[in-house]
Amino acid sequence: MDFRSHGGSRARLLGCVATIALGSWAFAAHAEKREFNLTIDEVTINVAPGFNANVFAFNGQVPGPLIHVREGDDVTVHVTNNTTLPHTIHWHGVNQTGTWMSDGVPLVTQKQVEPGSEFTYHWTADRPGSLWYHCHVNVWEHVAIRGMWGPLIVDPKNPSALEKSVTRDVIMMMNTWESPFGPTYGKGGSPGDVADYFSVNAKSFPLSQPIRVKKGEVLRFRMYGAGDEVHEMHLHGHDQLFSHKDGYAMASPYYVDTVPVGPGERYDTIVQMNNPGRFIFHDHVDRHLNMGGMLGGPITVLEYEGVGPDNWYAWNGKAYDPDFFYSESMKKGYGMFTNVSFIGTAQKSERRARQ
Amino acid sequence: MDFRSHGGSRARLLGCVATIALGSWAFAAHAEKREFNLTIDEVTINVAPGFNANVFAFNGQVPGPLIHVREGDDVTVHVTNNTTLPHTIHWHGVNQTGTWMSDGVPLVTQKQVEPGSEFTYHWTADRPGSLWYHCHVNVWEHVAIRGMWGPLIVDPKNPSALEKSVTRDVIMMMNTWESPFGPTYGKGGSPGDVADYFSVNAKSFPLSQPIRVKKGEVLRFRMYGAGDEVHEMHLHGHDQLFSHKDGYAMASPYYVDTVPVGPGERYDTIVQMNNPGRFIFHDHVDRHLNMGGMLGGPITVLEYEGVGPDNWYAWNGKAYDPDFFYSESMKKGYGMFTNVSFIGTAQKSERRARQ
Amino acid sequence: MDFRSHGGSRARLLGCVATIALGSWAFAAHAEKREFNLTIDEVTINVAPGFNANVFAFNGQVPGPLIHVREGDDVTVHVTNNTTLPHTIHWHGVNQTGTWMSDGVPLVTQKQVEPGSEFTYHWTADRPGSLWYHCHVNVWEHVAIRGMWGPLIVDPKNPSALEKSVTRDVIMMMNTWESPFGPTYGKGGSPGDVADYFSVNAKSFPLSQPIRVKKGEVLRFRMYGAGDEVHEMHLHGHDQLFSHKDGYAMASPYYVDTVPVGPGERYDTIVQMNNPGRFIFHDHVDRHLNMGGMLGGPITVLEYEGVGPDNWYAWNGKAYDPDFFYSESMKKGYGMFTNVSFIGTAQKSERRARQ
Repeated sequence: MDFRSHGGSRARLLGCVATIALGSWAFAAHAEKREFNLTIDEVTINVAPGFNANVFAFNGQVPGPLIHVREGDDVTVHVTNNTTLPHTIHWHGVNQTGTWMSDGVPLVTQKQVEPGSEFTYHWTADRPGSLWYHCHVNVWEHVAIRGMWGPLIVDPKNPSALEKSVTRDVIMMMNTWESPFGPTYGKGGSPGDVADYFSVNAKSFPLSQPIRVKKGEVLRFRMYGAGDEVHEMHLHGHDQLFSHKDGYAMASPYYVDTVPVGPGERYDTIVQMNNPGRFIFHDHVDRHLNMGGMLGGPITVLEYEGVGPDNWYAWNGKAYDPDFFYSESMKKGYGMFTNVSFIGTAQKSERRARQ
Repeated sequence: MDFRSHGGSRARLLGCVATIALGSWAFAAHAEKREFNLTIDEVTINVAPGFNANVFAFNGQVPGPLIHVREGDDVTVHVTNNTTLPHTIHWHGVNQTGTWMSDGVPLVTQKQVEPGSEFTYHWTADRPGSLWYHCHVNVWEHVAIRGMWGPLIVDPKNPSALEKSVTRDVIMMMNTWESPFGPTYGKGGSPGDVADYFSVNAKSFPLSQPIRVKKGEVLRFRMYGAGDEVHEMHLHGHDQLFSHKDGYAMASPYYVDTVPVGPGERYDTIVQMNNPGRFIFHDHVDRHLNMGGMLGGPITVLEYEGVGPDNWYAWNGKAYDPDFFYSESMKKGYGMFTNVSFIGTAQKSERRARQ
Repeated sequence: MDFRSHGGSRARLLGCVATIALGSWAFAAHAEKREFNLTIDEVTINVAPGFNANVFAFNGQVPGPLIHVREGDDVTVHVTNNTTLPHTIHWHGVNQTGTWMSDGVPLVTQKQVEPGSEFTYHWTADRPGSLWYHCHVNVWEHVAIRGMWGPLIVDPKNPSALEKSVTRDVIMMMNTWESPFGPTYGKGGSPGDVADYFSVNAKSFPLSQPIRVKKGEVLRFRMYGAGDEVHEMHLHGHDQLFSHKDGYAMASPYYVDTVPVGPGERYDTIVQMNNPGRFIFHDHVDRHLNMGGMLGGPITVLEYEGVGPDNWYAWNGKAYDPDFFYSESMKKGYGMFTNVSFIGTAQKSERRARQ
C-alpha cells in the first residue's frame, strides 16, 4: 500500500448549499459539503536518532493529514480501522451541534470501531479555530504514545482584523514518547511509566525542521498539547501575542514569551517577523530537551532570509521541508492534505496482509 | 457513630446583625452568624473498583460536607480531631481579614490540633466564590492522598448578571491517589511516589456519576485542583466560558474547551445546555484515565433528557445520585450539608474507641 | 577568590546617549550604557538542612546577582567561564533587536563558551519587565539543578499607574533539585530522575526567609519558574492582582490566589498589604513541601510589623535578611548587585586553581 497516493486526493467537494440549519443554529450561504477518507494503519516512524515508534497512523502519517475546512461546512469522514486494536475518532473542538453520535467517544456516543471495521462521522464545522482529531480509545496509549492525532483547522466565516493580518500558519503538535513501549502495541501509558522522548510534529531535534521566514511576515503559531505532559513553548526574539485558546479568540489578548501548552489544550500566538536573525523556539521544560545527554526534543529555529550560513550552526546546510509545520498545506485552500514527510513505514501484520 | 445523623444538622443560624466591622472593612445589613461542627475521623472509602483508601474524613465523608454561606457572614467552626495524627483547617480563599489566627497554618498561625483535641475557627466570609477548606499539616499526605478537603461556597452580595443566569451548580474536586499507601496512615506523598488512581469527588469512573440535564439549563462548573497534579478538564459539545479564577470574577472572561486545573487552583466555567445528546467531561491527561488498562479517572457525562437509553452505553441504567456534584445541596440555601453517598466506613481505632 | 569583593562593583555607567537606534526601533534620551562582568564558578551551596548542591554560580552566588537596568539601556556583559564544562548565557525576555548573536543559544547564535574562555554579550534592553538570564547549554542539568539563573529587571520607560503604586519588589525564583546528583557535575536531569528538593531563591524552608512588611505597603511579587516543574504559588490572606505575564503587562489584569508558575514563565502579582497578621506564601504542589517527611520547600511568610512574637512560631527569633528577595537591591537604582547571603563555598578544582 502506498500512502502517498491517496491522502488528500480522496477529499471531494460536493458543492455549495444555500443554508444548513441545525436546531436553532444556522449559517448563511457558502457552506460546502466535504467528504474525506481516513484509514488507521500500523506503521513505524522515526522520532529521534535511535528511536523508532510503532504507531497507529491516520493515512499512514503522524501527525495525521491536515483537515482544513470553513465554519459551516458539512463534513463527512469515512474511517477504516486496518489495525489490530479498536479505535474511534473524536473531533476535539467540534461541538457536534445536533450530531452527538459523531462525537467519537466509545461506549458514550458509539461502539468502538473494531479491527477491520469502518465507521462514518458526519458533522458540521460549528466552531472555528485550531481544532484537532484524535482517537478516544485507551488514550493513555493511542493518543499519548501512538501518534493518533492530526490538525483540524476551521476557518472562521468572519475573521478578525488580527486573523486577517496573518501571512503564514505554523502548526506545532507536541507530545511525549515512552521508548520501552515503542515496539509493542497494547502496552505503555501507565501512571508510573517514564516518557523519555519529546517531539514536535513527531520529530525530536535534530530531526525536526527550521522555519524559514522573511522580515514582514506575520506568523500564527498553532500549538497543540497532543501528548501527556505540559510543554512550555518559549520563542526567542519576538513578542508573541496569545490570541486564541482552544480555538476561541481571547476576549483580551495578551503578550507572552513562554506558553504552557498542556495535554488537550491549544494556544495560538500571532507574531510579527520583525527581527532578522536566527532564533530558537523550544520547550522550556528542561528534561524534554535531554535525549540521552544530547540536545533533542521539541525545537525549531526561525531562520530569517539573508542570515548565515555559519558552519558552526547545528542545522547549517540542512535539507528543508517547508511543509513540516503544515504551512504549505494551509495555503492550498480547503480539503485534506497529505504530508509526505510524515508517512511511516508500513508493517506486515496479519490484519494488513488481508487488504 | 453514625455520620449520617449529625453533618449539617448542627449548623445554627444565630440571627441577623446590622453591621460587622473589622478594621476598615465593613458590610451592610443581612450578614448572618453561622456556626458549624466538623469532626475529623479515620474512615475507609471506596475510590475505584478494587481500590479503597484510608482517609481523614470531615464528618465522615470525602469530599467534606458543603459549607455554603454568603459574603459578609460571620462563621464559627468547631473542629474535633478524632484521628491518630495532628491536623489544622485552612479556609482557602478566605482572606481572614482581621482574624489571621484562624488561617489554619501550623506553627505560623496556630499550634496543630493534636489527636483528641478541639479548635475553633472564627472568621468573616470576606471573599465570595469557589473557595475550599483543607488540612494544612503534612499536606503531601493529608491533602494529596487522604481526602482532607471540602467545598466552601461563598455567594456574592451583589452577583453579576452572568452569575444570576446560572440554574445549577456543579462542584468537581479532582485529586490523585497512591494505592500502595492507601492502607497506611503516615505514609505516602513523597516526591518519587507514583499516583496511580485519579478521581472527581473521590470517585474514579465508573464509580463517578453522570449529570442529567435539560436543554435550557445553565451550569456553573466549579473545578478544584484538590490533589497534587494538573487535571486538564475537557468538556465535549459545549462552549465553556471561563468566568472565575480561584473564586474571583475574571476581568475579561474567555471561552475554552480544556481547562488546566492545577493543585490549589479553582476554575469556574459557565455553560449553556443547548446541545441535546450525551457528552463526556473528562480529564485530558491521558494516563489519569488508565486504571490498570481499564478506563477510569475523573470522568462524568452530560446526559440530556430524552436521549437514550442505549444498551451499549457504559452507564446505561446506572443508579443516579443527583447530589454527587453537590447540585442538590447547593439549592438548599445556606448552611452545612451532608452528602450521604460520600460517607465512608468508620474504622475501629484506639482513638475512636475512646469516644 | 572572594566573590564578595567584585559582584556589582564592576558595573560601570558609561554615560548618557541621546538616542539609540537599532533598525526601525529607537528610544528617546536617557538611555545609559551599562557594563557588567559575570564569572561562572563551581561552588557549593546549602539548599536545605542536610542537602548541599554543587552548582555553576554566577559571581559565586545562586540565584545570580540582580541585574537592574532601564528600558532602552545599552548593556554589555563580559562572561568568564571558570568551570569545567561549557556554558552560554541567554537573556530570557530580551528580544535582541538587531543583536541576535547575543541571544546565547549554543550552535544557533554562537559557539558555546568553553572552560577557561570568555564571551561578551551586547544588547539593548528592548523589553521591560521581569526578565532573567540563564545558561542555555545542557539546560536539563545547568538550569534545572545547577542554579544557573538570576533576575534581570528592566524598568519601563513609561510605568503605568499600577506599577507606580508599588513600594517594594519581591523576586522569587523557584526550582527543583535532584539530591542524588548534587555532588556530581555532568549528571542529572534525565527524564526519569526524581526531583526531591524544592526551593525559592535556592533555599528550602526553614532556610528560606520571611518578608517583613507594614500595613499600607504595596508589594510586587515577581515569580519565576527557574526549575523544571510547575510551582503553584498560594498567598494567604490577600488579593493578588495578576498584572504581568513573562514581563508583559496583562491587557486585562485579574485576581488570583494560586499562581501556576511553570518552567520558563514569570508571573507578577501586585498586592496591597492591608491585613496585619502572619500569612504564609507557599507552593501548593503538596509534595514540593515534603522534605523527608518534614516541612520544606518554597515557603515564605508575610510578617506584619507589630504581630507576635509567638514562641510556637516556626521562625520566631529568626535572623532576618531583608535582601533575600532582592528587595533591598531593587531600591539601589540601576546596576548589578551582589547578594552576599547567596554566595556559596568555592571548590578547589584544577580549573579554578589555574586562576
